Amino acid sequence: LNRLIALITDFGSRDAYAGILKGVIAQIAPGVTVIDITHAIPSGDVYRAAFELWRSVPYFPKKTVFLVVVDPGVGTGRRAIAFEFESRLFVGPDNGCFTFLLHGAVPDQAIELTESSYHLKSVSHTFHGRDIFAPAAAHLARGVALEKFGQPIDDIFSITLPLLEEDGENCVKGEILHADHFGNLITSIGILQFQDEGVLLAPWLPSCPSTSLPSTDVQLLLPNQRALPLQRTFKDVLKGEALAYIGSAGLVEIAINQGNASEVLGLEPGQEISIGLKG
Amino acid sequence: LNRLIALITDFGSRDAYAGILKGVIAQIAPGVTVIDITHAIPSGDVYRAAFELWRSVPYFPKKTVFLVVVDPGVGTGRRAIAFEFESRLFVGPDNGCFTFLLHGAVPDQAIELTESSYHLKSVSHTFHGRDIFAPAAAHLARGVALEKFGQPIDDIFSITLPLLEEDGENCVKGEILHADHFGNLITSIGILQFQDEGVLLAPWLPSCPSTSLPSTDVQLLLPNQRALPLQRTFKDVLKGEALAYIGSAGLVEIAINQGNASEVLGLEPGQEISIGLKG
Amino acid sequence: LNRLIALITDFGSRDAYAGILKGVIAQIAPGVTVIDITHAIPSGDVYRAAFELWRSVPYFPKKTVFLVVVDPGVGTGRRAIAFEFESRLFVGPDNGCFTFLLHGAVPDQAIELTESSYHLKSVSHTFHGRDIFAPAAAHLARGVALEKFGQPIDDIFSITLPLLEEDGENCVKGEILHADHFGNLITSIGILQFQDEGVLLAPWLPSCPSTSLPSTDVQLLLPNQRALPLQRTFKDVLKGEALAYIGSAGLVEIAINQGNASEVLGLEPGQEISIGLKG
Repeated sequence: LNRLIALITDFGSRDAYAGILKGVIAQIAPGVTVIDITHAIPSGDVYRAAFELWRSVPYFPKKTVFLVVVDPGVGTGRRAIAFEFESRLFVGPDNGCFTFLLHGAVPDQAIELTESSYHLKSVSHTFHGRDIFAPAAAHLARGVALEKFGQPIDDIFSITLPLLEEDGENCVKGEILHADHFGNLITSIGILQFQDEGVLLAPWLPSCPSTSLPSTDVQLLLPNQRALPLQRTFKDVLKGEALAYIGSAGLVEIAINQGNASEVLGLEPGQEISIGLKG
Repeated sequence: LNRLIALITDFGSRDAYAGILKGVIAQIAPGVTVIDITHAIPSGDVYRAAFELWRSVPYFPKKTVFLVVVDPGVGTGRRAIAFEFESRLFVGPDNGCFTFLLHGAVPDQAIELTESSYHLKSVSHTFHGRDIFAPAAAHLARGVALEKFGQPIDDIFSITLPLLEEDGENCVKGEILHADHFGNLITSIGILQFQDEGVLLAPWLPSCPSTSLPSTDVQLLLPNQRALPLQRTFKDVLKGEALAYIGSAGLVEIAINQGNASEVLGLEPGQEISIGLKG
Repeated sequence: LNRLIALITDFGSRDAYAGILKGVIAQIAPGVTVIDITHAIPSGDVYRAAFELWRSVPYFPKKTVFLVVVDPGVGTGRRAIAFEFESRLFVGPDNGCFTFLLHGAVPDQAIELTESSYHLKSVSHTFHGRDIFAPAAAHLARGVALEKFGQPIDDIFSITLPLLEEDGENCVKGEILHADHFGNLITSIGILQFQDEGVLLAPWLPSCPSTSLPSTDVQLLLPNQRALPLQRTFKDVLKGEALAYIGSAGLVEIAINQGNASEVLGLEPGQEISIGLKG
């Protein structure tokens, strides 16, 4: 049984919570491998969970079960759901944490986890990760069919996606999505193709504005109007200098070569940036 | 070989120490799955280790080997022990870290880990986790019988359990045990049954005082005499408001709906609280 | 397939980066066990990575594949390499992170990872951990022969090893290498034999100065000229007192019994210490 379960939670590392999920999984699906994507989502930050899920999924095998437990609405009416999308399975609260992944698409099959025979015997009001979500992920990894877990649903809740709009000719506005561990700033602007004729778009938004740009003479404009040329990689600037480049998730990032851009430039998630032609 | 080893240590994540335990286990018991419960027990905090172990164990499969390495007395005379209890196996220093789990019970079979053929060849004076405990856990997971590891013992060291006493009629005093990652405050007061006639007690203390209470009109009294009604779950109060509720470990907890109770209320482990009838 | 891959990175725990490495490995080598040694190497700190690798390797099984991704020069000309050494396999950037391990030795077989059929299809300029190193580790764990990954190389880059020199008769100067999670200070001075006639040396430096010492009357001199006697273990001093002892990696360490030596003594990596005969 080479099935995987991959975890994204806001449980942190101080408590036994993430370990308890794995104990529950091991009871139901012995031998299934569990991979921690991260447990350091800020408490209740559904947006961040959605982002980390989106950039991780393409690197995991087909049939992986992704279990997302960032659940500020636990115990309220929010639905517990599971669905299949692009040959992978997803389990979590229906609070928007699948927004980036689905980018408006509707999965073939989505279920509300109402069937109590796949819950733990006693379900708490505050830890559905342990009592409902982890058991569902484990049974899915064992091969139980999705339709057995409850009633089909035909909609999944979405949160508002990051700003991304055309701003005059050959210019796209976006925002800073995330400051990573290295202080690199990941923006909402993606570049899927950037050779002779680059195309800017947010890869999770099929209908987002796109702009055709030459690959030279492109620059990123910071909130303080400082312009950074779009480079290929860190070494294209001196140590300690700032640059913009296409990061490993296909999004434009801002970094300092061997430094911490978030600290040095004083930038943080939510701030607006734009990218366009020089001059 | 679907045996599990579950780890609780105070090693943190900066060093290779937890990884080295897993290397040692992989050498002795290839294919055994290792689950991290937590490595973030505060340095030498046996009490906290005992608590995290207690709340994790019920969610792990029978036959799991629990390895606890919170060992401020390494290199002193404290014994290294292993025992079986309620179909699970436990390995660690005899310093009180099994107190909550055992709640005064005596395990069927307990052993001091004196048999050096189950130690690493060279045993350091400061890292018995690597040299004595991890090898014992790995050999146990391989199926070596407990009695082979050394001399039987008939007592296991206990630490003083948290305050829990009747305080007048229909009132029980306890204390805050732990502030978790979310800022939720977990108290020493448990409620095993709370429907028409609730029964308050600490579940690890079979002989603790218990009080019969109606399920309505119960409130928790904070150190500053502020009263919080006992609710079912977060959504029963407005966002930003405080509540008491039965948490996922069966203990009364104090939280702020979508906030951090430890910070907002200024409460921390060791402080006294009480629970009883209103008015 | 009981092969292991052991990870050392500076990715931290906030992002999905370490999880993504494991997703890539699971796609290429399903069923291979991945062990986290640490992801908390300070950003770009090749020296620290080299140290953590060195002290971990002896505790892992033969045939383990060690994957080190501390890669401040990603995207520059630094080579991506893999090699076999003492029956274990190593993958990472050629930036000095293997210096402590190799201590000047040349591995039997070392390869530059130039063969693109073992890279991911699309290789980013900033995340070779995902696109080049993790795939190489996974294919090695599957049993692909080292020579298939690219061109043989006959040198591996080294960083400057820590200071270690004779300082008069029967005295060796070294430095503080690392303050660990407990605040214990690990020095560059090793003692491989310390019974009747102790021999001081840094175990990774076959040609380093060594000094024959009696096992009694040895003391460690702190930067402020305070002398600490060399003890066997923590309990040889009172709670709260400082001591020197041979730590679990075979190196002289400085600790406070049940305290944090780094904070209390105000010492940190890079500071010079010496060890020698009293008086």
